[in-house]
Amino acid sequence: MARPTPLSGFPELLPAQRLVEQQVIDTLRQAFELHGFAGVETRAVEPMDQLLRKGDTSKEVYVLRRLQADSGEGPGEGPGEGAGDAAGRTAGLGLHFDLTVPFARYVLENAGKLEFPFRRYQIQKAWRGERPQEGRFREFTQADIDIVGRDQLPFHHDVEIARVMLDALSRLDFLPPLRLQVNNRKLIQGFYSGLGVADTEEVMRLVDKLDKLSEDEVARSLVADAGLSDDQAALCLRLATICTSDDSFTDQVRALGITHPMLEEGLEELTALVRACASLTTDRATVVADLRIARGLDYYTGTVFETRLEGQESLGSVCSGGRYDALATDGRTTYPGVGISLGVSRLLVPLLNRGELTASRVVPSVVLVALVDEETRPASEAVADALRRRGIACEVAPAPQKFGKQIRYAERRGIPFVWFPAPDGDQVKDIRSGNQVDADPQGWEPPGIDRRPTVVRRQKEQHP
Amino acid sequence: MARPTPLSGFPELLPAQRLVEQQVIDTLRQAFELHGFAGVETRAVEPMDQLLRKGDTSKEVYVLRRLQADSGEGPGEGPGEGAGDAAGRTAGLGLHFDLTVPFARYVLENAGKLEFPFRRYQIQKAWRGERPQEGRFREFTQADIDIVGRDQLPFHHDVEIARVMLDALSRLDFLPPLRLQVNNRKLIQGFYSGLGVADTEEVMRLVDKLDKLSEDEVARSLVADAGLSDDQAALCLRLATICTSDDSFTDQVRALGITHPMLEEGLEELTALVRACASLTTDRATVVADLRIARGLDYYTGTVFETRLEGQESLGSVCSGGRYDALATDGRTTYPGVGISLGVSRLLVPLLNRGELTASRVVPSVVLVALVDEETRPASEAVADALRRRGIACEVAPAPQKFGKQIRYAERRGIPFVWFPAPDGDQVKDIRSGNQVDADPQGWEPPGIDRRPTVVRRQKEQHP
Repeated sequence: MARPTPLSGFPELLPAQRLVEQQVIDTLRQAFELHGFAGVETRAVEPMDQLLRKGDTSKEVYVLRRLQADSGEGPGEGPGEGAGDAAGRTAGLGLHFDLTVPFARYVLENAGKLEFPFRRYQIQKAWRGERPQEGRFREFTQADIDIVGRDQLPFHHDVEIARVMLDALSRLDFLPPLRLQVNNRKLIQGFYSGLGVADTEEVMRLVDKLDKLSEDEVARSLVADAGLSDDQAALCLRLATICTSDDSFTDQVRALGITHPMLEEGLEELTALVRACASLTTDRATVVADLRIARGLDYYTGTVFETRLEGQESLGSVCSGGRYDALATDGRTTYPGVGISLGVSRLLVPLLNRGELTASRVVPSVVLVALVDEETRPASEAVADALRRRGIACEVAPAPQKFGKQIRYAERRGIPFVWFPAPDGDQVKDIRSGNQVDADPQGWEPPGIDRRPTVVRRQKEQHP
Repeated sequence: MARPTPLSGFPELLPAQRLVEQQVIDTLRQAFELHGFAGVETRAVEPMDQLLRKGDTSKEVYVLRRLQADSGEGPGEGPGEGAGDAAGRTAGLGLHFDLTVPFARYVLENAGKLEFPFRRYQIQKAWRGERPQEGRFREFTQADIDIVGRDQLPFHHDVEIARVMLDALSRLDFLPPLRLQVNNRKLIQGFYSGLGVADTEEVMRLVDKLDKLSEDEVARSLVADAGLSDDQAALCLRLATICTSDDSFTDQVRALGITHPMLEEGLEELTALVRACASLTTDRATVVADLRIARGLDYYTGTVFETRLEGQESLGSVCSGGRYDALATDGRTTYPGVGISLGVSRLLVPLLNRGELTASRVVPSVVLVALVDEETRPASEAVADALRRRGIACEVAPAPQKFGKQIRYAERRGIPFVWFPAPDGDQVKDIRSGNQVDADPQGWEPPGIDRRPTVVRRQKEQHP
């Protein structure tokens, strides 16, 4: 077998990089659990008809086929090769492209066995067949939190979701500063309705293009394509440029002179959200009311979230979500939800690939127990077992080489301590300082910082 | 959307069941890391030519196709629908069916960036399109550990792998007792060679059928299909029935009167393995030298492992592996390995589905903070935040219902404590005992056992 090469869009991590990712996932999970969220995993596959409901992403779905289903069937024998065919039991299955569609299905399927409001976190892979580019992969890890109610879900859960994710993100202290941008679809739609706009969806879609087009271009398009007057278009754009880090956006919106009951409702909700998040704002995580955010054509009905990483704006939003009044419905019962989804791969893989984040060592071991000769391997193993019983990760040297070589073995892996067993008393050496002291495997403790590999932030390298 | 139904072979867990699985995975990971194993994840997909090298399982592979690749291509337009077609960049990708094939590829791909011997654990999903049955799923979680060397890997790593997995399994104290069965392919092959058997592989394949056929049937087949004499067949069967919990198997083998250098080597290795594991044997985890174990047609070249759960023998082996002298090779360099793979789903899902294992509660929360009225929600949130800062998971009641209703909210989720904030001093109630005491969110501690949901083992239910 020749040396294989990476598959574009399917990032894989070296052990030190995986240590960073694992620590991020552990930190997120710990934060979510502290807030009472239960962990859930869903299967990787969903029926194609479920995946294709969200028309926009349908082309990105990976369809599954059992190789077995090929047996005895040549190509062109019939229409049986498509996603909806009847050949084999996996006909019509595809890999999920997010964690929301499977979660909505899971809620419906298990509604009778769940307690509502149901808080769940889900940290899992998803797959999209789109063209790989920076921060966008064909296989990627998402970390989602959602709160789902039966029939109703009070607004304070929107606040809760924002606070939980802010709490979680603020624990990742090795990330660049980030900005949670919040808005409310009721505010936008109410404003457009108060303005006399008929097709509010179309206007939202066009205003959403401010990321790529200039204000003038969007204004022209609002007039030409959505039939707005010049004044209407100007007001839509003025709304979209309002962005405040406190609740002063309300006065700015009111100054535009538009009134509508839905606008009022949206202003009220967004004010409550921004105020409730104010106490969580730090120099590394800020919250702003950004009235341009609409989350495109997604099915959100109230609060919407996006998140930008400082200096990494080209990645787009790394953490997005919002309120959906009907996350799922079986016809009789409707399950409203509010959630937010963190793109773990989108966030981390570029930082890891550029070497900006790494781990302090490539193995969990705190200690390498040296080996005097093969005959005394059991003695070295006994030291290792004693350390492990007290939660200290370690490994025994693979061969009884000269101690200098064994120390270099530890150095190459970043293992900070080498332990020398001896009949007249063991010693342990901190190979960074060279400091060597007497030690007892029943009592010796490494410094707390050395117990586990830590995430190391490196100076940003120049890249083209 | 009508209420969806489960997909056969794709098990999904309810929150309490997932808590059990998560705890098992955490425990395994902790044990592996204590032994210095680094965590690795590989992508879910591999090129089909890699997956099909192991011919036996080729029919079980799930082939991927991008839906996009269909656009403008009708069925029957050409041979472009198969696994090896050139349509799209995902042509020729399938889901991995184990973690060994991807790991071997990962080692080759990253050999220049890894330190050898390389210890890795990998806990991930795999997929097989086979017919679902008890303990066999189309999507399942595996926990693998392997040690890989460059050019050579001393035998003591075989012992290490067995000890690490025994250590990990013995930490899962809610599992039924288990038996690690060990053998050595050199022992079997050496014995057969010493016996004068030409096609040792064929004899191994036939003896492996002792699981399904009687000794007489296997003996007849050894004579008829493998050309053995009656005496040779009888000796092969006598070897296969040797099973000892100490190193006395050596004397039993020697008593059969066969000698061969490879047999001696196998006996020596197996003796070392059984002796080194003896100190780890407990009433819940035993190690036996079982000379019937051969691991079928797999590519093992020395030590082989299987594991049976007491009372769950129908599940087959839940934890298998062995030594492969060539885990991977790029033509110039060979990477020998030894590893063992635990079927997490195979082990757990039947126990979970029969209700024999569950969790003490369905949410991580230790405390439900009661809500007096909506106006004082910030006060309840402040209590919750104070508890969370000290690592105590909690949630605030969703609505200011009567306290009796809020207590029942906690009861339904198994949350053990309800906290009542009050201007003149908070109180906390253990709703299991009814005991209610004054408490300060800055200082109150739940009993250690309540900090996290625990795994609960229930009396085995009758099942048909």
